Amino acid sequence: MTVPPTLATRAAELDAADALAGYRDEFLDVEGMVAYLDGNSLGRPLRATRDAMTAFVEDVWATRLIRAWDEGWMDAPTALGDQLGRVVLGAAAGQTFVGDSTTVLLYKLARAAVDARPGRDEIVIDTENFPTDRYVVEGIAAERNLAIRWITPDPAGGVAVADVRDAVGPRTALVLLSHVAYQSGFVADLRAITAAAHAAGALILWDLCHSAGAVELALDTDGVDLAVGCTYKYLNGGPGAPAFGYVATRLQGELRQPVQGWIGTAEPFAMGPRYEPAPGIRQFISGTPPIVGMLPMRDMLALIERAGMRAIRAKSVALTQFATELADELLVPLGVTLASPRDPAARGGHVTVRHPAFRSVNERLWARGVIPDFRPPQGLRIGLSPLSTSFTEVALGLAAVADELSG
Amino acid sequence: MTVPPTLATRAAELDAADALAGYRDEFLDVEGMVAYLDGNSLGRPLRATRDAMTAFVEDVWATRLIRAWDEGWMDAPTALGDQLGRVVLGAAAGQTFVGDSTTVLLYKLARAAVDARPGRDEIVIDTENFPTDRYVVEGIAAERNLAIRWITPDPAGGVAVADVRDAVGPRTALVLLSHVAYQSGFVADLRAITAAAHAAGALILWDLCHSAGAVELALDTDGVDLAVGCTYKYLNGGPGAPAFGYVATRLQGELRQPVQGWIGTAEPFAMGPRYEPAPGIRQFISGTPPIVGMLPMRDMLALIERAGMRAIRAKSVALTQFATELADELLVPLGVTLASPRDPAARGGHVTVRHPAFRSVNERLWARGVIPDFRPPQGLRIGLSPLSTSFTEVALGLAAVADELSG
Repeated sequence: MTVPPTLATRAAELDAADALAGYRDEFLDVEGMVAYLDGNSLGRPLRATRDAMTAFVEDVWATRLIRAWDEGWMDAPTALGDQLGRVVLGAAAGQTFVGDSTTVLLYKLARAAVDARPGRDEIVIDTENFPTDRYVVEGIAAERNLAIRWITPDPAGGVAVADVRDAVGPRTALVLLSHVAYQSGFVADLRAITAAAHAAGALILWDLCHSAGAVELALDTDGVDLAVGCTYKYLNGGPGAPAFGYVATRLQGELRQPVQGWIGTAEPFAMGPRYEPAPGIRQFISGTPPIVGMLPMRDMLALIERAGMRAIRAKSVALTQFATELADELLVPLGVTLASPRDPAARGGHVTVRHPAFRSVNERLWARGVIPDFRPPQGLRIGLSPLSTSFTEVALGLAAVADELSG
Repeated sequence: MTVPPTLATRAAELDAADALAGYRDEFLDVEGMVAYLDGNSLGRPLRATRDAMTAFVEDVWATRLIRAWDEGWMDAPTALGDQLGRVVLGAAAGQTFVGDSTTVLLYKLARAAVDARPGRDEIVIDTENFPTDRYVVEGIAAERNLAIRWITPDPAGGVAVADVRDAVGPRTALVLLSHVAYQSGFVADLRAITAAAHAAGALILWDLCHSAGAVELALDTDGVDLAVGCTYKYLNGGPGAPAFGYVATRLQGELRQPVQGWIGTAEPFAMGPRYEPAPGIRQFISGTPPIVGMLPMRDMLALIERAGMRAIRAKSVALTQFATELADELLVPLGVTLASPRDPAARGGHVTVRHPAFRSVNERLWARGVIPDFRPPQGLRIGLSPLSTSFTEVALGLAAVADELSG
């Protein structure tokens, strides 16, 4: 596979002008990797992470042992949450925590929300939302005897403000939407949709899995109630790293989550006879904090703090813009359609293209070291993690897609 | 602090005769550690774990990236579960999985159990059970409109078969007990209590947090329905490592857990419109498997498989027997009482002693490198992880307790 010379030159020029290019050296190299285009599914590890894990085992776990619970581990979920809030989410301290999986946190916070609106019997969600979001809502609706009101957006776009205004009403307890659609990469209008939910008296829970670390967020300013997100995509927390949850301060006295655990009590080591939820964000924690699983994301958060989300988003937009241009030039002539927004403001960190042959094309791409991912029925997602992806990688990757499609 | 010479000799003789003594070299040394007596709270890391974490970051995460989900990660929760079942739990394949925290798994499996017994409105649990077990039951009872029937055992012992027979009846949906009591170390009669619950038509959920890796288990033979346990104690999985859950094959078609996630479906990457639980044990998984958090326990499971649970339990009994003898000799004369069973068959992997001064004594012990833990109101727990603890450590530790009490 070769990249057309003019294309290689354009990519090289963009890389040369990239103020964040130096950050790529912070990630571990991989021999034989031509283009990693799936940072929206699993971020690459930092060199610092490899070293931090060894240091953790030797200097903390082996040495401090149980004493380390008093020396930082017990506060790690909220300390890390506060940092995530400050650096990535636009959230003041005391509203964010790390723990559980995205699915478990969606369950806990969605349950807390609908249980706090007992007079309302509907949950609003969209048919194109990520499967786990839909399945969690399906389960909660069944167990709490609620109805689901489905929004059916264009799969190449996403949920519009008008869709939400049409769907919500006096019966709506909760609206659960993804900020960046996992298929199309469409960015929903978080602020306006939040306002629309509130105008109907409903609570809103945002899934930020494809936003956090790729798109600028201002949860406090935008009046968000609840949010959940994953840390193994653009936050490079490693496979299956714990999720994060956000509960606005104003709701913490009102909401109660169902998985009552000892770490969410005011004094875990008092081991009292009855569950007394901790004041503030700690009550949303259930079990023992996943310290080992939380390690890698610390390194990436430090890197994001250094680069700044504004610069990261600017590079993300430039990367997806370049991918869109290349899709138009190289793939559309081969029968591919673009399934992501052309407006950069409405596009998250990945670009999706569609073709009936993409399932088998994806397998062949993986074998040659070009790694996007395939999403049924026909979607090839080009995920562009801003701090670890070069414009040359984008060019190599999309040229390889063209090569496989035409070969 | 010095250890009386006759005591040092006895400890040295026991160490010399210990067939498992060589396993201690597998753990990372800690400078300044005199006696680590809290392996029942947090197991020490293996040398192999330090190396495995580096190798994982470099050779798997960084290199295989998203491809690793197809190359083992997706099956890791059940593959590791099967190994745990075979080596530690006495459970045939297809009944055990790893994921979530102990608290979340208690919630999921207890909910599954009570929801499967809709005509019954009571949960049986004991007042001395670990706080998170009690808090989870309290929450479920409130949300499902069930009553809690409390067994109140002797805090220096535990739940007897007769206690359970008296408590269960036609109203009992679920019995939730700890196999080894976290305070006293009392070992409940798992087989007879399971039979008593079944005789009343109830399901039983065993908390194995203080059993797994210390006490021999035969879940299949003993007819257990459900079990949950932690992996950071005697399984050395690291702080906050994921928990394990066991659901007997015969119940897998009947029970449904409430946190419906995409990884628990038959085909996660089909991303279908409705939740279709996977057949078998996979349906009890909710979110993305915590791959990084599952790493360390693999090394310890390999070590346990090599040593064998029978030999491990034999050393555990010898260690707790020696600790009991030393408590009688060194501590009882100072006003300490033994709060653990004297019968080795009724005693798990730790020994608890009581004294009004133990809160402050524990702080001073920690400062001098002797590390038991304190449990209110007066308990000092001496936790003896069989593969990493020497008899000399027990002697040094209990002599230090005597020293602090009399000093």
